[in-house]
Amino acid sequence: MLNEATIIKTLARESDGFIGDDAAVLPLPDGFRYVLTNDVLVEDIHFRTRYFSPKDLAHKALHVNLSDLAAMGASPKYILCGISIPISKGDYAEAFLHHLLQACKDVGVRLIGGDTTRSPDKLYISITAVGAILKRCIKFRSTACEGDIICVAGDLGWAHLGLRAFEQSVSMPKIYQNACLLPQAKIQEGIWLGKQPYVTSMMDVSDGLYIDLRRLCEASSVGAVIHLERFGLDEQFIRSCQSLELEPIEVILTGGEDYNLLFTVQPKYFEQLALNFEDSFKYPIKVIGHILADSRVIFRQNNEIMNLNLNLKSFTHFGEENS
Amino acid sequence: MLNEATIIKTLARESDGFIGDDAAVLPLPDGFRYVLTNDVLVEDIHFRTRYFSPKDLAHKALHVNLSDLAAMGASPKYILCGISIPISKGDYAEAFLHHLLQACKDVGVRLIGGDTTRSPDKLYISITAVGAILKRCIKFRSTACEGDIICVAGDLGWAHLGLRAFEQSVSMPKIYQNACLLPQAKIQEGIWLGKQPYVTSMMDVSDGLYIDLRRLCEASSVGAVIHLERFGLDEQFIRSCQSLELEPIEVILTGGEDYNLLFTVQPKYFEQLALNFEDSFKYPIKVIGHILADSRVIFRQNNEIMNLNLNLKSFTHFGEENS
Repeated sequence: MLNEATIIKTLARESDGFIGDDAAVLPLPDGFRYVLTNDVLVEDIHFRTRYFSPKDLAHKALHVNLSDLAAMGASPKYILCGISIPISKGDYAEAFLHHLLQACKDVGVRLIGGDTTRSPDKLYISITAVGAILKRCIKFRSTACEGDIICVAGDLGWAHLGLRAFEQSVSMPKIYQNACLLPQAKIQEGIWLGKQPYVTSMMDVSDGLYIDLRRLCEASSVGAVIHLERFGLDEQFIRSCQSLELEPIEVILTGGEDYNLLFTVQPKYFEQLALNFEDSFKYPIKVIGHILADSRVIFRQNNEIMNLNLNLKSFTHFGEENS
Repeated sequence: MLNEATIIKTLARESDGFIGDDAAVLPLPDGFRYVLTNDVLVEDIHFRTRYFSPKDLAHKALHVNLSDLAAMGASPKYILCGISIPISKGDYAEAFLHHLLQACKDVGVRLIGGDTTRSPDKLYISITAVGAILKRCIKFRSTACEGDIICVAGDLGWAHLGLRAFEQSVSMPKIYQNACLLPQAKIQEGIWLGKQPYVTSMMDVSDGLYIDLRRLCEASSVGAVIHLERFGLDEQFIRSCQSLELEPIEVILTGGEDYNLLFTVQPKYFEQLALNFEDSFKYPIKVIGHILADSRVIFRQNNEIMNLNLNLKSFTHFGEENS
């Protein structure tokens, strides 16, 4: 039986004085700005307890939010967690909160408040994350310029392969399963890129590159050309797509929930930045195209313009979006 | 049909630049602190669409959160709203968001972010509210001292009468219905009390005085004596309780969701503070008892100690609590 008072006491004890009053008081780091983001995970919309352990779900609920902070260049500081728990999921929820505290500790984040309520039947999790950043390091998605090089840090489509495999009960290499269950917010990469003055814009890829790149272009009033051959599909990825009857390039472009960083760099400074990035993070930046002055978003394969006929239904038909 | 992109565009347009990126950037008022709180409202746990119009629910969802800010003495500044919407409630949710924006404007608050997702069947609303306050004005619940006078700003039990009347489809005076549907966070009172140096502690009464007073005492490591005759029950209240077969004093003590302010004042300065309060807000502070050094919470009626046998089941059995 779930005991709410006990849960709140545990959370309060771990919060170092932040929890226990009507609201949490934030200290004020000198010269910094706070950035805030909120993401909601709903059972049977964003996750199923069938293949999400409480530990994996805690990790994901946290990192989905931290990815938004990373995309601004911010260091994660605090979260508030609102959770609504059906009676049948009391033990699951209690384990979730235990692992959420641990996942917070792992990345130096403090849980400083929230709300615990009953839910009629589904588990509902709302996390608000607070990051801190020096004002001059904040990266927006609205500041890309013509000629900037378009880059991605991280692998695209992997989480989608994992998700589809779970949903269809198909076996799948562990790396794709883990991309779905345990996405890693690019926290350090975000902070690092925030400090680079020649990174002209940044956002995270949560709904798939195809949609998120358009958002960046729209926010910046620019267009883009993307070179599909640059994604360098490997054998394992292609085989895994085939086993699910999926088109690899469609998975790359429309697969969501990878929580990578999409950013643009002034071309003159790109080479050095790419070298420094690989030096710091031991993997290369992917260069996928460049920014156009007009609002077209063009996909090319070996210099031919492709008319992509992508199935975006699940994304435009009231999917999950961040505002 | 609910169109999420349209909703987000509307919210972004109204947000004065806060919405539109991965996270909202907060400006930094000089000498101030931010306070954060989060409350979740779940359909059929905290509200029913049968008697909550989208407009009333928007008001309530906002004010439940603003009450937590008021209880710290803070001015409300921003909210983030995470909302999960069942397909059948698309129009209701859209109207809710429209009225939420209006309710925010009414109190000078800006909606700066959130998340809009689908829900399998129930409507979920998570609001995170951000307030700002000068550090020296912050009021905690943990700082009440022996001898302090215990006060309440606002009427107790009214919202509970309204709720029970709706649930049992009994007619009820409009004032009690509105206390349930349209609770007014004591924003100005909270800010005013925050500025009074002789207010020694403060919190809001959201789960009923009986429970919330114990929380204040526990946080402050003190006790309290409450004089029941001071509540001054009027005829209309008693008759309304009787029509629902409720004990008036039980409704006063255990009825939740009034969103009043409970606070303590140094006795020496109380008279002047009470005069100034009534002068400012055109209604008197209720004086209900005083703080004891030990941890007992005693209820007296005409100098006799009462053994209250209250039905708190709905509150202790995994009801809704704020952390």
